[in-house]
Parts: sequence; C-alpha cells; structure tokens
Amino acid sequence: MAVEIERKFLPAGDGWRGLAAGTHYVQGYLAADRACTVRVRLAGASAFLTVKGHGDGLARPEFEYPIPATDAAQLLDLCPLPLVEKTRFRIPLNGLVWEVDEFAGNNSGLVLIEVELASPDQPLEKPDWVGEEVSTDPRYSNAMLARYPYWTWAGS
Amino acid sequence: MAVEIERKFLPAGDGWRGLAAGTHYVQGYLAADRACTVRVRLAGASAFLTVKGHGDGLARPEFEYPIPATDAAQLLDLCPLPLVEKTRFRIPLNGLVWEVDEFAGNNSGLVLIEVELASPDQPLEKPDWVGEEVSTDPRYSNAMLARYPYWTWAGS
Repeated sequence: MAVEIERKFLPAGDGWRGLAAGTHYVQGYLAADRACTVRVRLAGASAFLTVKGHGDGLARPEFEYPIPATDAAQLLDLCPLPLVEKTRFRIPLNGLVWEVDEFAGNNSGLVLIEVELASPDQPLEKPDWVGEEVSTDPRYSNAMLARYPYWTWAGS
Repeated sequence: MAVEIERKFLPAGDGWRGLAAGTHYVQGYLAADRACTVRVRLAGASAFLTVKGHGDGLARPEFEYPIPATDAAQLLDLCPLPLVEKTRFRIPLNGLVWEVDEFAGNNSGLVLIEVELASPDQPLEKPDWVGEEVSTDPRYSNAMLARYPYWTWAGS
C-alpha cells in the first residue's frame, strides 16, 4: 500500500500549455462508495487497477496494480457510463511533478492540476499558472466527475 | 481476461474429507452489484484481486491479479463485514479439479463444491460425494454469502 497525499488546484491561465506532451487517459469506476473507489485506468499504452480508501484530509491509502491494456478495455465495459476522459500533462518542476488534466467528453472545459506530496504539510511553491485550491471540494474528484460530469454543473 | 465456467454442488456425505489438504481463505468484496464483483482474497500465503462480470448462464468473465498478501490484509479492511472465511480442499480427479469449500464464521455449517469446466456443456462424471447442483441458485455465490450469510437462512 502507498499513501496518496495530493493537493488539487484550478489553473490560472494556460501557461502550462506546451510544457509537456500529453497522454490520453480513459478511466471508469467499478466501485465508488463511502468505503473505497475501484478505478480502471487506461493511460496511453499502460493500464492500472487502483483501489483507494478514504483517508483523513489530503491523504488516502492507495493500492495500484498494473494490468494488461486489453484487460482494461474489457474492464471499462463493466464500469457505469459515462467514463472519464482526459489528457494528462506531467510537468516536473523543482522536485515536484505537477499533473495537469485537461478533461474531454462530458467534462470538457474542465482543467484540474494535481500535485503529489510526501506529507500533507510539505511547503509548496506554486507556478504562476496554478490558481485556486480545490483539494477539499468533492465535486472535483474523478469518481464524482464520472457520476456528475462538469457539463451538469449548470450555474455553478 | 479469462472466462470462468463453473458448476456448483452441495456435498453428498463427507467422502471428500481426507482427499486433500486444505488452504484457509478469507475474502471480501469491494464491490458486489449487478455489473460486477470486485473480490479481495487471501488464500494461505497468496492473495488476489479479482473482478468478475456477470455472464450468461454458467460462464462469467473473470480478471484475476496476484497482489501482495500484505496489501490484501489492508484491502480486506475496506470491505464491508462480514468477510467470507472457508477452507478450500482442491481434489484433482479424472482431469478435473473439484474444489470443496468448507465455510466458517457466519457461514459455518455450509459446504459447497465447485468445478471449473472448459465449456458449459462439458460432460461431468461426479464422484459419489457430490450431490445436488446449485449452480443457478444465487444464494450460493460467495458475494451473496458475504451479505446474507448461511446462518441467516432460517427455515430455508
């Protein structure tokens, strides 16, 4: 088991564009309830089956297993629709990796930026294209975006 | 992906005892709904994360991945209680492997016998300790036994 400690932000402008090549992600959820999420992710030519528990604050237990991409395609067929589609840009900067997710499909128009930390209180020097923090807003979890896509957030 | 083709029986007597050494299994379900089940299984010193879809009749799509036993112990903590506990006796006979599951805990008193086949219509020579077939009785799926354990079947 790993512990995932992650902070999440909205972008401030698009200064992140062009800093990294993107990888196409398709993911779905075999389970997404109070106790855990079970995610199937096809990431370019790689694929993963990932179980995340619910942790305290920014930290969550995470169990990730690489699986054959052909399995992932079939497992995605077992997931409720819609699937979450996005392009991920991994941008290394000062010892951290900023992951910019530009969503597509039902979440088109949404860009989220995540950064994984070694501890919840690790000091963070944000690049100027990183804006408002949304770490504690449940709408921005990918499991919630599968169920309540961005385009349904009318008026928000 | 594999396709699991399985028939399931109640025992007829205990002629199966002593034919094989048993392995202790503990398993739980991260998901168990109409689309799929996600099972965590600790089998002796081995452990597996398994996704099963719902197939037609006796055949189900199955995706099984070995995982570290230490992960399995932590993943079982994320599963709803009660967990399913049993001792499995694997008995090879005429080219088939009969798996006798003697349940414990909340399913104590229940013995189920499973056999995996290459095709649903494969001819089957049953040993005399194999009794009534319950392949299509949903109560006997392990995912259902987790939710509605054998001891709750009062009067059945």
